[in-house]
Amino acid sequence: MKRLLDPDALRALARGCAVLGAGGGGDTYVALLQALQATEDYGPVPLVDLDELPHDSLIMPCGGIGAPTVSIEKLVNGNEGARLREQLEYLTGRQVTALLASEIGGGNGVLPIAWAAAMHLPLVDADGMGRAFPEIPQVTMQLAGISPSPAVITDERGNLIVFRTISGDWMERLERAAAVEFGGAASSTEFSMTAAQARGATVRNSVSLAIRIGEAIAGAESEPVAALIAEIEAFRLVSGKISDVERQTRSGFVRGSVVVEGLGADAGRLIRLELQNENLVALERGQVLASVPDLITVLDAETADAIATERIRYGQRVTVIAFPCDPVWRTEKGIAATGPRAFGYDFDYLPVEGLAGATT
Amino acid sequence: MKRLLDPDALRALARGCAVLGAGGGGDTYVALLQALQATEDYGPVPLVDLDELPHDSLIMPCGGIGAPTVSIEKLVNGNEGARLREQLEYLTGRQVTALLASEIGGGNGVLPIAWAAAMHLPLVDADGMGRAFPEIPQVTMQLAGISPSPAVITDERGNLIVFRTISGDWMERLERAAAVEFGGAASSTEFSMTAAQARGATVRNSVSLAIRIGEAIAGAESEPVAALIAEIEAFRLVSGKISDVERQTRSGFVRGSVVVEGLGADAGRLIRLELQNENLVALERGQVLASVPDLITVLDAETADAIATERIRYGQRVTVIAFPCDPVWRTEKGIAATGPRAFGYDFDYLPVEGLAGATT
Repeated sequence: MKRLLDPDALRALARGCAVLGAGGGGDTYVALLQALQATEDYGPVPLVDLDELPHDSLIMPCGGIGAPTVSIEKLVNGNEGARLREQLEYLTGRQVTALLASEIGGGNGVLPIAWAAAMHLPLVDADGMGRAFPEIPQVTMQLAGISPSPAVITDERGNLIVFRTISGDWMERLERAAAVEFGGAASSTEFSMTAAQARGATVRNSVSLAIRIGEAIAGAESEPVAALIAEIEAFRLVSGKISDVERQTRSGFVRGSVVVEGLGADAGRLIRLELQNENLVALERGQVLASVPDLITVLDAETADAIATERIRYGQRVTVIAFPCDPVWRTEKGIAATGPRAFGYDFDYLPVEGLAGATT
Repeated sequence: MKRLLDPDALRALARGCAVLGAGGGGDTYVALLQALQATEDYGPVPLVDLDELPHDSLIMPCGGIGAPTVSIEKLVNGNEGARLREQLEYLTGRQVTALLASEIGGGNGVLPIAWAAAMHLPLVDADGMGRAFPEIPQVTMQLAGISPSPAVITDERGNLIVFRTISGDWMERLERAAAVEFGGAASSTEFSMTAAQARGATVRNSVSLAIRIGEAIAGAESEPVAALIAEIEAFRLVSGKISDVERQTRSGFVRGSVVVEGLGADAGRLIRLELQNENLVALERGQVLASVPDLITVLDAETADAIATERIRYGQRVTVIAFPCDPVWRTEKGIAATGPRAFGYDFDYLPVEGLAGATT
């Protein structure tokens, strides 16, 4: 065991997950409350390394699926994780040894802890993205050739669906349609695997990283934004205020754009963020400052708390940062799955450190 | 065993299923070709009575789900039935003893025979409707309290989904969404049950009835429409030509309306049929001539072949008939599930024999 995820660790984790969410992954506030309550009820969750687990132990990746805008108001009932586990064990004939956040970003990095606590299972110090992405096959397990099947999705009412699909794209299509019918959000597990498989198919130590990010923000004596930028070696794209928000929830996603008007040293600049659950690209006068798979995160200019796409409002004072994704997303397969063209943009991916934004 | 479903029986069956389809249940032409081919390849399918089967033998109701307009062009690949069976046996830990058409109406009354032939399984002489209805829980099994779960749906590509829902309405909603994602049509099984359960939860002898209807049409020396009307004690609503067709395929259904302009003795009359996969109501000057759950079927005026909603065209010479549904649909629960109000109409069900249409 690496550590116990006690309330202090959970609070730091939630802040870090918000930063790694790049605007998405679901609300951390609600997920943190659930994890704190579950920890109080059942005790803290052990954080374990994949190397500590037997090779053939079954790892259950899990989290929420749907539009983050919905998950703020449409809460889980708390039994979803147990139902997913029960069904996965029934389908595989094996026992789940540990949970894994499918994505460390946003509330999805925290929610599995609430489920793990209630089941007295440990959480693996890894995830399937190193950030948040909107679509199901946009995980490192897909790149590594792990099957997404059998996947299980459930809602707060007790409905349950099992998917066995011929591809990750079909999994995305069918699960998304189900999530939409459930009201726009649901809980799910895909890409179950052994610990041995997970060692080479996940972003390792990302829970620890998120905690460290949260602690860097909380521990800053002044200038928490600067402290965070230093901790993760991020680039500051702009500081200013939100001057326009366009946001629609449809087809199980939130999509739209946000305009940041520069203030102070950035006066006169206009930065546009385009989003699909997560912030996908940052543009200035048609020039790309940063793009997926690198992370673009909007921070509260005072507290350095990341502001999720579903909570961005006109007038907020913000600093927008960008920082490199996990190297796995910069491979040919990684860029094909999560680069700008995967989201319909007609330009090639360039690492954020080589773009104009990095020089500001 | 009651009989073997040889090619002659299949041809009669397909004609009878079209009449019992009330316009829906999917195209009988394509299903008949599949059943004939499978019979040639694997031998004829035995038709069995539920009383012949051991009490605890597992019955698999099955058929197509989606918009009939789609199923004409988007063909099954032939393995769907085997995949449904394999999954159902895996989920229940039991062996399927016989197939049952979820609905006898339309191609769905014939398609299970193609599947049964390939699996060397018998077909039960019964179904879940005694006709065709558009929605999954509109079956006698739902009225009898049989659970629709676990339901399995699959497509021609090999994708497979298992549903365990809290109600028949949720099954309809979730399966329909999946069928839409599959392209508008798919193959499925719901309401699996034992033979003992099925004896009190199905419309019995409906396969034999469909064959008898088909034989009555084929055997008529002249006036096949009159022969059919006599055989099933139907009411003739109007004879004329199709003067208007409005039809849309959306949300996994075909919806629309058809206007029949009276000819000959019916000159001057205009009858309007409203449809959702099946013909739901027949109206004349705002007056109801017949409505669900009674059957309204459009016949070719010359051959008495039933014309499905997806094949109705301007100019066709037709006779529209209506006849009583199985008594189970005239109970309070049956009317609540399949009467006019279940389809959004603001009037109460009246049996066709008491309505104006019956007097013509």
